[in-house]
Amino acid sequence: MSFLEKLAAASRSRDSIICVGLDPEPDLIPSALGRGPQAAVRFLRRIVRATSEYACAYKPNLAFYERYGAAAFEVLGQTLQSIPDDIPVILDAKRGDVPNTAEAYASALFDAFHADAATVAPYVGLDAIAPFAREDRYALVLARTSNPGAGDVQDLIVDGRPLYERVVSAAVAAFPAEHCGFVVGATYPEEARRLRALAPDRLFLMPGVGAQGGDVATAIRAALDEKGGGVLPSASRSVLFASREGDYERAAADAARALRDSANAARAMATERR
Amino acid sequence: MSFLEKLAAASRSRDSIICVGLDPEPDLIPSALGRGPQAAVRFLRRIVRATSEYACAYKPNLAFYERYGAAAFEVLGQTLQSIPDDIPVILDAKRGDVPNTAEAYASALFDAFHADAATVAPYVGLDAIAPFAREDRYALVLARTSNPGAGDVQDLIVDGRPLYERVVSAAVAAFPAEHCGFVVGATYPEEARRLRALAPDRLFLMPGVGAQGGDVATAIRAALDEKGGGVLPSASRSVLFASREGDYERAAADAARALRDSANAARAMATERR
Repeated sequence: MSFLEKLAAASRSRDSIICVGLDPEPDLIPSALGRGPQAAVRFLRRIVRATSEYACAYKPNLAFYERYGAAAFEVLGQTLQSIPDDIPVILDAKRGDVPNTAEAYASALFDAFHADAATVAPYVGLDAIAPFAREDRYALVLARTSNPGAGDVQDLIVDGRPLYERVVSAAVAAFPAEHCGFVVGATYPEEARRLRALAPDRLFLMPGVGAQGGDVATAIRAALDEKGGGVLPSASRSVLFASREGDYERAAADAARALRDSANAARAMATERR
Repeated sequence: MSFLEKLAAASRSRDSIICVGLDPEPDLIPSALGRGPQAAVRFLRRIVRATSEYACAYKPNLAFYERYGAAAFEVLGQTLQSIPDDIPVILDAKRGDVPNTAEAYASALFDAFHADAATVAPYVGLDAIAPFAREDRYALVLARTSNPGAGDVQDLIVDGRPLYERVVSAAVAAFPAEHCGFVVGATYPEEARRLRALAPDRLFLMPGVGAQGGDVATAIRAALDEKGGGVLPSASRSVLFASREGDYERAAADAARALRDSANAARAMATERR
């Protein structure tokens, strides 16, 4: 089953279009779970159990695992094992390197860690994206990122259009929809709207919901495709660390359910209006 | 001691301006060393021992370690232990993510793995670079990469200048020379020459020497700074896999020494001409 098929099935079975980012922050993990790598594993496995009814995808960002040094990929592997088999995993790695090296990264993410999809950076070139966007793989190419400094490079004007539009057009031309979507920050709905016009049939992973300030309803209204789909809003800190007390599991479940419901309401309203 | 000071000292003590990339490719490691992660460790430790008289820096690219899955950072850690303390380590990771995540990546590379410098991708924005370019850290920002597709994004024209020049100018303005240099592929000497004019006081890490087709003398002539320094040509496959037979250690030593000598000759000739 392809990533998009698996995502669609998980979305249907949970009536959800939201993704939960699994980003362990050592200082925010409830101290009752202990410390160090095993505390992260315990925490993340409980978060997955608490939220898996409400999420159609999980997105671990590798940065937060690599901070555990030699134990990094043990923590990641043990976390991934707790994710139900029918929920796709997006490894948020933002890799981008010359072709021979990009092959090694793609092999690490898809073969060693069994990712269903991975995020990829475009600066190095299309040949750096290619190993992630073929066979049974799926690349989510950075288009417009969610950070305050996103415009530093992405907004530079090339032939009268911002660079991020140019990147999307080039990737759309190079890679088919089954193998390539885009990362479009939920914090930039106006840019998301422009990109939807350029990439009508592509999935937009939309991080930045919650702690980074992105509003899920605004993001969905901006980026929903013609068929009322194509958007995957993602929240991390606002779900994982909804409470730092003993009730963190229930708080994470409540936050994920509330986000799912808001997303579904926004989607229904936007579809009706058409 | 800062990265640049450590690099200068290692360069003086070895009379060398070359960097060796430590990128284990499972299929190319001599089969006599066995298979799997421990074969990579054995191989890399011997390569380091064979070449450490001729290299002033080592550059492990994390992609080639991550392919070992859960063992990835054990292989990296054990390899790093074999590098003499006075030789700086550049972790070639090309990370680039939103600020909170970039902090986690920088902490992984500099705190958990004790990198002296790291490579960083600029597409996400200057706030994605900042955590790598401060305190006792050093960022090598991708400017012009060594791959055939480098021009896809990097050559796009912004205000009459290619994007890679714009990226370099922005990073030079944002981060001081003690904390920020650039990755400039040895395969693109003409672009390197243009960048030297824009960044006269910055270190250029120049990968792509050897297997990727970059000529060390040409790259040095193009990029040497006013003081006859500022260049760090880097080769990986052409040193590590100089021979795949039983004599691979001697072959790697010979290749590293030959590269060092070529680099020194090119540098001496270019300095004389001025």
